[in-house]
Amino acid sequence: MAQNIYDDDGFFAGYSRLPRSVSGLDGAPEWPTLVAMLPELRGRRVVDLGCGFGWFCRWAREAGAERVLGLDLSEKMLDRARADTADAAIEYRRADLENLELPAGAFDLAYSSLTLHYLVNLDGMLATVHRALAPGGALVFSAEHPIYTAPREPGFRVGKDGRKTWPLDGYLDEGRRLTDWFAPGVIKLHRTVATYLNLLIGLGFTVERVEEWGPTQEQIAAHPEWDGERERPPFLLVAARKP
Amino acid sequence: MAQNIYDDDGFFAGYSRLPRSVSGLDGAPEWPTLVAMLPELRGRRVVDLGCGFGWFCRWAREAGAERVLGLDLSEKMLDRARADTADAAIEYRRADLENLELPAGAFDLAYSSLTLHYLVNLDGMLATVHRALAPGGALVFSAEHPIYTAPREPGFRVGKDGRKTWPLDGYLDEGRRLTDWFAPGVIKLHRTVATYLNLLIGLGFTVERVEEWGPTQEQIAAHPEWDGERERPPFLLVAARKP
Repeated sequence: MAQNIYDDDGFFAGYSRLPRSVSGLDGAPEWPTLVAMLPELRGRRVVDLGCGFGWFCRWAREAGAERVLGLDLSEKMLDRARADTADAAIEYRRADLENLELPAGAFDLAYSSLTLHYLVNLDGMLATVHRALAPGGALVFSAEHPIYTAPREPGFRVGKDGRKTWPLDGYLDEGRRLTDWFAPGVIKLHRTVATYLNLLIGLGFTVERVEEWGPTQEQIAAHPEWDGERERPPFLLVAARKP
Repeated sequence: MAQNIYDDDGFFAGYSRLPRSVSGLDGAPEWPTLVAMLPELRGRRVVDLGCGFGWFCRWAREAGAERVLGLDLSEKMLDRARADTADAAIEYRRADLENLELPAGAFDLAYSSLTLHYLVNLDGMLATVHRALAPGGALVFSAEHPIYTAPREPGFRVGKDGRKTWPLDGYLDEGRRLTDWFAPGVIKLHRTVATYLNLLIGLGFTVERVEEWGPTQEQIAAHPEWDGERERPPFLLVAARKP
């Protein structure tokens, strides 16, 4: 069984106050970049791996998707997703992505937002996703950027000139990282950019777009506290296709 | 005209003493990884973009290449390459990769070792390379890793525990970086990993392999001074194919 931090009361309370939890996709600053990487959804079948409160599932239906399956490990998140959704074409289902089972060729888009860096068995999950996509189907995901997950002691250092640097180390040493984020001892799995891409390529995906996301200057003007986020990208976004 | 640091006397003297200059490919610790990314060369036509002393050109012929074209901006390097080569199937030619011209469909492999991070006009050069490859042809290159080229003040910081961290900043701000390397004011062009890959994808290449190279534990045991190189990768290696 995967770790289930989202059902921890303290974690859930903290996470629920994030702008992306309160305002949905528009509260996620990487969303404009991610949405531009999505295929046309009209009439398509979508699975959302780590659907959380269901914001993307509902958006996908508004964008014309025929049906949407939202998967998450957290009962609390699924409860709220169901409460916030009135659409028979959206199904929310509890699933452990570490042991994912999906029917073959059943989806045209597999989507995942900021979930993959929690998974130990990423290889197995991506193999299942590849089988679950119809030919021509797309996988679009975001994850915490490997530069962000690597360090033993993450956190900006501020120089005498006030500029921030990110103390990178451990980049090539993949594996578990323990961090405190709304709750102590949150486990993330650090993998390199190369590992993410080579996993996809090895499964037969064609990599179509890679983004190392950081805020625009306009976003920083509106949120000065994000000024460090261009020094090192917080998120990795990838679009791939099953030929 | 591109900068031509390699013909600077001081730079050339320093560069010529590097293990990779003295011992060739076996003096380059990333070579075992890079060679594994190359296609079969028997009977193939090869162009080496930034051929230096010609080590790879001669290796490619030993690996069965039909003919090899080595391009470089540095007269000094080409002079030594010619002096070290006795093979009519290898041609060395002076070329400015900023304004590269190659015949269409004339090559099966374009190779480039640690050169692309000097180029302002990388887009134009890669477009020329794409046209110059026959269908099925491969591009395999190494470049300084964007994590390595990004910082305003590159150089490891050593903590109280003796461990090294790399003070990353400026990652998302692409463009010129001035460094001192055997000569003052060497100009490098910082680009993100995403930019390298999206340039290739945009031209029609299929990305087949990405490596963020650092030394193995065995290499560090033999060269303890490389211990920081696993904290952040020094080189980015990419294999792509023209379908």
